[in-house]
Amino acid sequence: MIVVMRHGATEEEIQRVVAHIESKPDFRAHISRGVERTVIGVLGQIYPELKDELETFPGVAEVLRVSKPYKLSSREFHPDDTQVRVGDVVIGNDEVVVMAGPCSVESEKQLLETAQAVKAAGARILRGGAFKPRTSPYSFQGLGVQGLRLLAKAREETGLPIITEVMTAEDVDLVATYADILQIGARNVQNFKLLHAVGKVAKPVLLKRGFATTYEEWLLAAEYILAGGNKQVILCERGIRTFETYTRNTLDLAAVPVIKRLSHLPIIVDPSHGTGKWHLVTPMALAGVAAGAHGLLIEVHPNPDQALSDGAQSLTPENFRKLMDGVRAVAGALGKRVAPPSQPVAV
Amino acid sequence: MIVVMRHGATEEEIQRVVAHIESKPDFRAHISRGVERTVIGVLGQIYPELKDELETFPGVAEVLRVSKPYKLSSREFHPDDTQVRVGDVVIGNDEVVVMAGPCSVESEKQLLETAQAVKAAGARILRGGAFKPRTSPYSFQGLGVQGLRLLAKAREETGLPIITEVMTAEDVDLVATYADILQIGARNVQNFKLLHAVGKVAKPVLLKRGFATTYEEWLLAAEYILAGGNKQVILCERGIRTFETYTRNTLDLAAVPVIKRLSHLPIIVDPSHGTGKWHLVTPMALAGVAAGAHGLLIEVHPNPDQALSDGAQSLTPENFRKLMDGVRAVAGALGKRVAPPSQPVAV
Amino acid sequence: MIVVMRHGATEEEIQRVVAHIESKPDFRAHISRGVERTVIGVLGQIYPELKDELETFPGVAEVLRVSKPYKLSSREFHPDDTQVRVGDVVIGNDEVVVMAGPCSVESEKQLLETAQAVKAAGARILRGGAFKPRTSPYSFQGLGVQGLRLLAKAREETGLPIITEVMTAEDVDLVATYADILQIGARNVQNFKLLHAVGKVAKPVLLKRGFATTYEEWLLAAEYILAGGNKQVILCERGIRTFETYTRNTLDLAAVPVIKRLSHLPIIVDPSHGTGKWHLVTPMALAGVAAGAHGLLIEVHPNPDQALSDGAQSLTPENFRKLMDGVRAVAGALGKRVAPPSQPVAV
Amino acid sequence: MIVVMRHGATEEEIQRVVAHIESKPDFRAHISRGVERTVIGVLGQIYPELKDELETFPGVAEVLRVSKPYKLSSREFHPDDTQVRVGDVVIGNDEVVVMAGPCSVESEKQLLETAQAVKAAGARILRGGAFKPRTSPYSFQGLGVQGLRLLAKAREETGLPIITEVMTAEDVDLVATYADILQIGARNVQNFKLLHAVGKVAKPVLLKRGFATTYEEWLLAAEYILAGGNKQVILCERGIRTFETYTRNTLDLAAVPVIKRLSHLPIIVDPSHGTGKWHLVTPMALAGVAAGAHGLLIEVHPNPDQALSDGAQSLTPENFRKLMDGVRAVAGALGKRVAPPSQPVAV
Repeated sequence: MIVVMRHGATEEEIQRVVAHIESKPDFRAHISRGVERTVIGVLGQIYPELKDELETFPGVAEVLRVSKPYKLSSREFHPDDTQVRVGDVVIGNDEVVVMAGPCSVESEKQLLETAQAVKAAGARILRGGAFKPRTSPYSFQGLGVQGLRLLAKAREETGLPIITEVMTAEDVDLVATYADILQIGARNVQNFKLLHAVGKVAKPVLLKRGFATTYEEWLLAAEYILAGGNKQVILCERGIRTFETYTRNTLDLAAVPVIKRLSHLPIIVDPSHGTGKWHLVTPMALAGVAAGAHGLLIEVHPNPDQALSDGAQSLTPENFRKLMDGVRAVAGALGKRVAPPSQPVAV
Repeated sequence: MIVVMRHGATEEEIQRVVAHIESKPDFRAHISRGVERTVIGVLGQIYPELKDELETFPGVAEVLRVSKPYKLSSREFHPDDTQVRVGDVVIGNDEVVVMAGPCSVESEKQLLETAQAVKAAGARILRGGAFKPRTSPYSFQGLGVQGLRLLAKAREETGLPIITEVMTAEDVDLVATYADILQIGARNVQNFKLLHAVGKVAKPVLLKRGFATTYEEWLLAAEYILAGGNKQVILCERGIRTFETYTRNTLDLAAVPVIKRLSHLPIIVDPSHGTGKWHLVTPMALAGVAAGAHGLLIEVHPNPDQALSDGAQSLTPENFRKLMDGVRAVAGALGKRVAPPSQPVAV
Repeated sequence: MIVVMRHGATEEEIQRVVAHIESKPDFRAHISRGVERTVIGVLGQIYPELKDELETFPGVAEVLRVSKPYKLSSREFHPDDTQVRVGDVVIGNDEVVVMAGPCSVESEKQLLETAQAVKAAGARILRGGAFKPRTSPYSFQGLGVQGLRLLAKAREETGLPIITEVMTAEDVDLVATYADILQIGARNVQNFKLLHAVGKVAKPVLLKRGFATTYEEWLLAAEYILAGGNKQVILCERGIRTFETYTRNTLDLAAVPVIKRLSHLPIIVDPSHGTGKWHLVTPMALAGVAAGAHGLLIEVHPNPDQALSDGAQSLTPENFRKLMDGVRAVAGALGKRVAPPSQPVAV
Repeated sequence: MIVVMRHGATEEEIQRVVAHIESKPDFRAHISRGVERTVIGVLGQIYPELKDELETFPGVAEVLRVSKPYKLSSREFHPDDTQVRVGDVVIGNDEVVVMAGPCSVESEKQLLETAQAVKAAGARILRGGAFKPRTSPYSFQGLGVQGLRLLAKAREETGLPIITEVMTAEDVDLVATYADILQIGARNVQNFKLLHAVGKVAKPVLLKRGFATTYEEWLLAAEYILAGGNKQVILCERGIRTFETYTRNTLDLAAVPVIKRLSHLPIIVDPSHGTGKWHLVTPMALAGVAAGAHGLLIEVHPNPDQALSDGAQSLTPENFRKLMDGVRAVAGALGKRVAPPSQPVAV
């Protein structure tokens, strides 16, 4: 941590800061007098509040951090890639893993039909929401436990592991008995009680970026889970909120190479929420793969115009097959693998 | 709801949309053929998903909503101002109600000292965090139940009602046994399980705007609480996230007159989180009052440089007294009331 | 400037950075080895590109600036407030100076009528656009020179100095022969040729913040003008672009106390563009005054529904008189002055 | 255009709006009375100011546009792709055209060396800045005319057409005598005098998106150029400003498929400015190609740590060759072409 003094800070102001730092056990201050101003290096076991503390001193212009506030999620302290295993699927190596399915589980027919279609096209994991966070209290809120049971049934029929969202700490144990991967949604990325709870379970967690979450805050959210003991964390970029409103969100694909540099955790991309329009999903999925993503999360619905949520951004099974063809082409060009279609596909 | 067809949409595309609309009970479509394009009005009991549904049809350029998606929180459907009562304090009339206290409850001494000081200066409600949402798992997380007990003690000693945050649905009953007002923090504005839970208690709720929440989403979050049966909701603007990083957040004071126009709920301003720097708190507090806020939420700490959280944005008791003098002057100029200092103040 | 090395940077990497710094005349490097990483202080006459330069070295995690990149506009190097004089009006002292008038000059009748009305209500300076930057090429682009002549005529009739926008370096001399204050619009805040040109004229310049300009970039834009020799610069906050679209922009009133701390230049507020809705103009004008602004810029039009630009955000003369009453009340409460109405006003 | 009346608007308010609309020649109003509110369709030759005009009427809740405000740049009115020709290079067909070179022209040696290197690797157009828009007045401002001459010399030696920025209307003729493509920088996207000027020249224009420009505003900026008579416009996405500060900008790759849908103009991607960090340039370049971009704009410098501008985001010639290999692989996978390396490359 570096304390930057104001131009013209008095010697007494400088010494008060030094004294405060050195009043802490094992801390030392290190003064450096520049042409225009003095800076004071802080040596010791830095804690997050120290910045606020030092900024209240007279004569201080600014306090700069030089260490990242996260450790367990950082590549500096854990250089090797984390690989998350779900049955025989590995997320975080050279396979591009596609997770697909409906936004919400609506009925047995809708779910099984979609599950078979996405499996046939090469998806490796089935997604589907049972508990749905909805902006309006008047929107469909999901089937709840009944949705979880249908997901389990779809897994049984297709062999695909399932990922589904958990919205509150209380539901973690329930959802974990059904799901293969627990999803934390964008609105809950800083629901610290929930992060704490999923840090205690033995299932992988997919942590979506919030729509106004910086990379650093996102890795600190992951840190809550890792610090709880659960090392199986997958990150998912799903778009951030900006001034542009044509798209539902602005998909920040630079997150892919940035996270791979800052962290050892795998990162996947959700172009469905990231754009909010079905006709943008395929180009952005391909772009995500080209940027280096370890996987994709795609919404597919047999009849998007009948969907109870997010119809506008869902692909038909037919369009999903085309997406998978593109994904295979791009991934192949970059030396990555994608699961083949699992059965003859009638066109 | 208005469906805007693309320039050149075919008659068949138009008729498919019309047929879809009219397939719903009690819905009618109303075609209007303009110079450049056709628009179709949708008459019927609109539901949020209908937009997505219609946007998937070929030939549709855009679907525009013409109704607000919230009702209970809207002024159109509830023209008179809501007044929230807490003991003898009323939030939502012509008194500017100041809530003040430390960010976190740290100790009995710190809390009581602050409580006495803010009361003396004219605060009407004591704030203090017992459960703290913290970006880093390594930061102080609050005293929990012990903090709640200290708040109750401070209320006993000073007579000030207390406001404190609740972070998860599970804790609502516990916190409600101690607090006079339940606070929902910015990160939980779309924690729908929590909103649902506080909708069921008989205590007022202060709902902070999230840092990337639009006015509409904020009012929809309030709608969850109102729809649950709890009509005592206070809104609190606390800054949004923008590209400017000098301030911790960008305090959006236009929220005050906007919310007063769109809704009947009282709105207060938190310039402490809204700026993140103590030297900006007083000017922005005065600005909030001038914009028409029903109250203020201010962080005060006896020794900001020793605070376990948010020291950089906390006022000393002395600076808080000066803030209150300014608030009284501005409120008075606009015909509003502010509580007087409760005892002689030594300067 | 501080070079933060990566955790685990090699001694050779550190020494390459040191050698590079010390290869420059009169530069010294200052190594500080912390618990987790090494930081290198750079002592010497820092120039902006040095940051980029040092960030390309292997082993470097980050380069932090500790000096502000602007000097002439900074309060650190110029502690006393700048006061800008226009005739007998002073901007930057304890008077709140109101500049008002139509968005665009449309006709002699419209301008003179508005000029008389705003003068009567206490405005001190007349605003009006002759050259209009318009998002669409199909919108009214202003009357040009004819508009300048009408402004000069309105000045003659009312005695009010005039402020009008200049859009391009070529027009600076022309506009300066008519205007008392040259306005640089938000879209031109980084039109460096234009900034350079107004730095050479002997008229005050009002520099609006761009809608995506940080405080630092804004002060650097002012620096271009000051460095050209023109010290008469007024800053104007007019809202920034955020995710919220209900308002045209998000008026960032914290800019007022922030700029007063970082700079000696006067700062005023434009709540008309800052909100885009006439019913928000008065509360935000009062808030601006309470935040400490040195003045206001307000759009007034005799018939807002007939305005050729920005009708939705223009006040009628009647509403402007009410705004001025509120401004007088708030300014008075804070010990500031506002010009009285100049003649009996018939209500 | 649709006028949405408030819930409870009176018949008189409705009739005033209708009368206003129908007072205009060839305009008709079309009333539709819904369950909750009345909406009025406006039929006639809509102009941009009409929205503001109608929003000032009592009883009006909102005015919604149903037509796009741009025509010449819109795909609805010009369905076929525009192809821009520069010598034998075509931008806008199935070749991915790479434009590369230094941010600033610094010296003959630096420019020629870079030009040869990028040509060898497969670049088709040479970029280089002679006039540089710089945030700080103390930064290197470019070599000016001398830089243009060096660019012309590099074209002569390599055969590569050149693209360079023009910053002000006055310089358009000068720059056009040297450049093959005129670049309008992000800060000038709404410099309407400059857009007007380049609309009159017979050279292609590359129009960068501003860092806070919506798709619609960007296409309206293009409309200025097209309306001036110049149909050879290329759009370039270069990142927008968001709350995330790790990257210099947030590269919005969804702009690629969105613009291809809304417009017939070709679109390319600048991952150098779009990220600001050299190690992110290659993954984001590949992502841009996968998203469907017609080309790339890449900064290359023989010694990035000596660059007078943007060193941190410049690739070495070696890294640029690797980028081109990746671009060829991804483009090939999608059935697109990229120029081959033009000569054996020594590694």
